[in-house]
Amino acid sequence: MGGIGEDVAAGERLFSTGHQLRPWDLAVLASTGIVDVEVFHRPLVAIIPTGEEVVERGASLEPGQVWETNSLMTASFVKKMGGIPRISKIVTDDPQLIEQSIVAGSDADMIIISGGTSVGERDHVPAAVETLGELLVHGVAISPGKPTALGVVDNKPVLCMPGYPVAGLIALIVFGKEAIRILGHFPNRPSTVIRLPLKEKITSRQGYHTYVRVQIRQGEVEPLMVSGAGILSSVARADGYVVVPPNIEGYGAGTVVDVFLF
Amino acid sequence: MGGIGEDVAAGERLFSTGHQLRPWDLAVLASTGIVDVEVFHRPLVAIIPTGEEVVERGASLEPGQVWETNSLMTASFVKKMGGIPRISKIVTDDPQLIEQSIVAGSDADMIIISGGTSVGERDHVPAAVETLGELLVHGVAISPGKPTALGVVDNKPVLCMPGYPVAGLIALIVFGKEAIRILGHFPNRPSTVIRLPLKEKITSRQGYHTYVRVQIRQGEVEPLMVSGAGILSSVARADGYVVVPPNIEGYGAGTVVDVFLF
Repeated sequence: MGGIGEDVAAGERLFSTGHQLRPWDLAVLASTGIVDVEVFHRPLVAIIPTGEEVVERGASLEPGQVWETNSLMTASFVKKMGGIPRISKIVTDDPQLIEQSIVAGSDADMIIISGGTSVGERDHVPAAVETLGELLVHGVAISPGKPTALGVVDNKPVLCMPGYPVAGLIALIVFGKEAIRILGHFPNRPSTVIRLPLKEKITSRQGYHTYVRVQIRQGEVEPLMVSGAGILSSVARADGYVVVPPNIEGYGAGTVVDVFLF
Repeated sequence: MGGIGEDVAAGERLFSTGHQLRPWDLAVLASTGIVDVEVFHRPLVAIIPTGEEVVERGASLEPGQVWETNSLMTASFVKKMGGIPRISKIVTDDPQLIEQSIVAGSDADMIIISGGTSVGERDHVPAAVETLGELLVHGVAISPGKPTALGVVDNKPVLCMPGYPVAGLIALIVFGKEAIRILGHFPNRPSTVIRLPLKEKITSRQGYHTYVRVQIRQGEVEPLMVSGAGILSSVARADGYVVVPPNIEGYGAGTVVDVFLF
């Protein structure tokens, strides 16, 4: 039953670097007497929620305040991608405090900082990244998600995701997922895509890769397009998303589109 | 940014029973002030390795002995499927000790017992299940995996998987996976299947659903068919498997087949 010699020859290379060990691979290793193997560590991701208006979940809300939920979403997302999330306390819109939190987070393998990425007087996050390291890009051609910024501090990638939940989620999907995959040396896992016709037309934002949340109902794709990058409940109802490229204005009803399943 | 009222109406049903909460779903719930939700528990799976010839990993081997690896493979498989594995000590081929171990495991949501399922004088597992509860089936038309037995003890499903590693793995894929999914109320997740031509012919065992491990190389499917259900290293090299139905003798080279990816 899988003894030495019978199954694996001495000196035989069983797995290459980067191979993700599956249940039976562990058994093969163990059957040859290998009980410890060197593996890549799961990337530790420091998650920093920012914003004057966000308060801890469970705290009572003053007018104009909302509960902070992006760190919860991000932590769960990071875990799903194979990383280890570490959530910091909420940081208010203060340049110095934001810089401090980034420095504190830079012992991790990656930093995801939420909020404060637009171009307003309360948006200090991209500037903080620039002060501490290198701001690579601020503003990307995705919608929602335009205010996303990317940078490097202390050799660690920093993803500045917009505070609006849906925009933040798209930033996680477009940039966070791949960054965690690379940091964790996880194999490339293509998204599950299905091709189905649209029930209604999709209008998109020209010049942007538009991410449209959709439902699949009876073999048809129903867009859940709603105005406002903050409307997270549209994502809760979604089965996946359709990406409209920047050079067209949308898709007509009946068009067969690629749906990326969540 | 996702405050109450703006996003979700009072009384609105956000999720139905059985919906698997995704990262953004947690954020939607939290944004409405819901910080605790009732969820189905992950099924606890008692894993019982049996066999006179198997010894703890790391122990020194006498002639005829092998290290016990099925419990490791099964535990990792259970975890991957969303269950919680609990591994018992190795039980020797003694009817009473096997019964005791099954009784001890029946506090779990499911029992997977490995080895002792053939029809030999040292194979006491199916009889033990019959004594303690109900033996539903012993012997199934899958190859490898024929000696698999299924039963119920104390209302808990019992999967008796063959001790030969590849046969055991196929039993896990065919029966264990779906059992854990149902017990955990996980949504139905169809396997990822790709259709590609065979590089070489596949011969199968007539009257059985034959599970052939395959590699995918340059757009072609290469069978890793080797004799012996114990040759686990063939699975270590596999990208997935092809199932040949019982009523045919195999597939010829060039046939386009469905490959179930691991």
